[in-house]
Amino acid sequence: MKFLHTADWHIGKKLHGYDLLTEQRDAYRQIKAIALAEQVDAVVIAGDLYDRALPSEDAVATLDEMLVDLNRQTKLPLLAISGNHDSGVRLGYGRQWFDSTRFYLRTQVGEGLEPVTLGDTQFFLLPYFEPFAVRQLFDDPEIRTVAQGMARLVQVMETKFAPDKKHVLVAHFFAAGSTHTDSETQVQVGGLNAVPVDLLRAFDYVALGHLHRKEALQHEPTIKYSGSPLKFSTSEAADTKGVWIVDTDTTPVTVTFKPLTPLHDLVVLRDSFEHLMASDHDFGVGPDDFIAVELTDTTPIPNVMQRLKTRFPKVIELTRVNPLTVTLAQLDTRQVQNDPLALLKDFFEQTTQHPLDDQQLHWAKQALQRATKEDAK
Amino acid sequence: MKFLHTADWHIGKKLHGYDLLTEQRDAYRQIKAIALAEQVDAVVIAGDLYDRALPSEDAVATLDEMLVDLNRQTKLPLLAISGNHDSGVRLGYGRQWFDSTRFYLRTQVGEGLEPVTLGDTQFFLLPYFEPFAVRQLFDDPEIRTVAQGMARLVQVMETKFAPDKKHVLVAHFFAAGSTHTDSETQVQVGGLNAVPVDLLRAFDYVALGHLHRKEALQHEPTIKYSGSPLKFSTSEAADTKGVWIVDTDTTPVTVTFKPLTPLHDLVVLRDSFEHLMASDHDFGVGPDDFIAVELTDTTPIPNVMQRLKTRFPKVIELTRVNPLTVTLAQLDTRQVQNDPLALLKDFFEQTTQHPLDDQQLHWAKQALQRATKEDAK
Repeated sequence: MKFLHTADWHIGKKLHGYDLLTEQRDAYRQIKAIALAEQVDAVVIAGDLYDRALPSEDAVATLDEMLVDLNRQTKLPLLAISGNHDSGVRLGYGRQWFDSTRFYLRTQVGEGLEPVTLGDTQFFLLPYFEPFAVRQLFDDPEIRTVAQGMARLVQVMETKFAPDKKHVLVAHFFAAGSTHTDSETQVQVGGLNAVPVDLLRAFDYVALGHLHRKEALQHEPTIKYSGSPLKFSTSEAADTKGVWIVDTDTTPVTVTFKPLTPLHDLVVLRDSFEHLMASDHDFGVGPDDFIAVELTDTTPIPNVMQRLKTRFPKVIELTRVNPLTVTLAQLDTRQVQNDPLALLKDFFEQTTQHPLDDQQLHWAKQALQRATKEDAK
Repeated sequence: MKFLHTADWHIGKKLHGYDLLTEQRDAYRQIKAIALAEQVDAVVIAGDLYDRALPSEDAVATLDEMLVDLNRQTKLPLLAISGNHDSGVRLGYGRQWFDSTRFYLRTQVGEGLEPVTLGDTQFFLLPYFEPFAVRQLFDDPEIRTVAQGMARLVQVMETKFAPDKKHVLVAHFFAAGSTHTDSETQVQVGGLNAVPVDLLRAFDYVALGHLHRKEALQHEPTIKYSGSPLKFSTSEAADTKGVWIVDTDTTPVTVTFKPLTPLHDLVVLRDSFEHLMASDHDFGVGPDDFIAVELTDTTPIPNVMQRLKTRFPKVIELTRVNPLTVTLAQLDTRQVQNDPLALLKDFFEQTTQHPLDDQQLHWAKQALQRATKEDAK
């Protein structure tokens, strides 16, 4: 059989305050198009369907639409698990009905032990789990880490292997040896929670979620992170996002990468302020692309964020790659402003590389008002 | 056919801070037992399944359990709508799968126009709606009130009436002429949002939710509020809660009330403090019953709430039915306490009839500490 492996949709995620639902809907449409073009027999989603345990109504409505469209309208069998960003309870509401249209959603660790068989393949759908859940499941106080839990779970899974079937594990954890990016939850990818890849060799394919780059386990031909469909952090700017198409007809299974084209890309621009603002220079970015600016300048630039946004409306990050070399004496006095709030904004932006947010602006205004009043006394 | 009519489960509701999930699970078990004993063909839930648009995980898990048990395990067809307390989107997640086991959950006003036919009866499942939703549905700016919207909706429903079927409306609003209790949301039961009962006469039966007392429309034999399965406020203490069994085989339909027995009752005790505390007097209440105390005393009683709770652990309200007649001169000096915090607590409780909550206690302690420090200077 042939299936599509994706994960980490993070529906509802915001990128530096920017809503991504439009981009997520577009990525979904591309994933569906690939599934249809490749004539896959099923789609696997390896966890983190939502970005938050408590997703917004919009996120719930959007994911519901996608699942209904993919499974009920397009009639594609769906194999999915909850990730560490999902609330198993909230994501799993109603799931007992989903099996009826071959939408297999598993949100409790014990459910991972009962394989779902589709065609020539047994799928073990193991949701994200904490060690205590496996400790409880087996009533074994010795199980203290994810790796120990996983060893025990794989042991039981192997007893369920049908010899004439291929065996696929769908799971959501940090597999040791993999590298990670900034957009994953740091606390979850640490040492104690790592699963050694050697524990996973019993399977013909392991469809992982959790890490957002497909390269996280690039030396493993059949243990794969699909990565997220969108770039969620600057450290992923150079990545190509996509999905795996897995064909179980061969031994070993055949794995092919299918890229997704970002509707609005995340781009890092490293350049001088002057060059960035020069209107005759084409950086090949659209007005809806997300831009991380790395300024090469060494002098302060007043209102830098505000001015950059006139050229690039969605600047999501502003960093300086060179130290500021300016001294007070070097300051161009023509640029010195008399408005204390403007001065404060500039100073804040120069030193922190971030503009004041609304709350901070509010505080600053209040403080200045009070200071002005006291001056007047 | 025969169906059971219930509504306003409000899963996740707290009563003066007390979790009600245990009581709600018990009420559910009784409702199920009645449905089985009466051999009904379906169960109707007329809105407000949850207490909040954003229910807790526990509430989601509990409702999911009930729905799975009633529909998937017990195999009872289920007809349900969202109420004003539900988020249609959150309650409705996954509902496109629910129809497959005859669990008909409707959360959008337009869906109410397509009847669900079970046996000899057409059910119009009309979720709670705001006037703008009907205005939008019919693209008619004249629709400004729930009554206007309802008139238009009923008009369309009538065109769908199959002449050889009975016609039942399931809806969630304030029907004019009905009375209401404290546990409903006041803003929702006001004049502009009222639906005249005359608009509802086209139906053989109208299964309403929203008001928590079955007596709210007691003079209407076939337009009924089921009321909530539990008492949610002191004003409902004397009520008998239950469900309606509706038999559509007769014309008019036959309606029978089936009471529920509270696991833990809500009881009002009007008595003197002395009598209430007398250990030889049996008030017929259990330690888990919710008690609203109406004190008949006219003198202040130190630590009244704390002392009452030694006798009745779940005092949820404390009011005085007689004015305090004490003067300073009458105060028994033996009861005068030297601890300022105890005095403050007493005073607060005497005047407001409520004990200090944790936050207030914290503030009081801080204020007293500061005052003491300043004294010492």
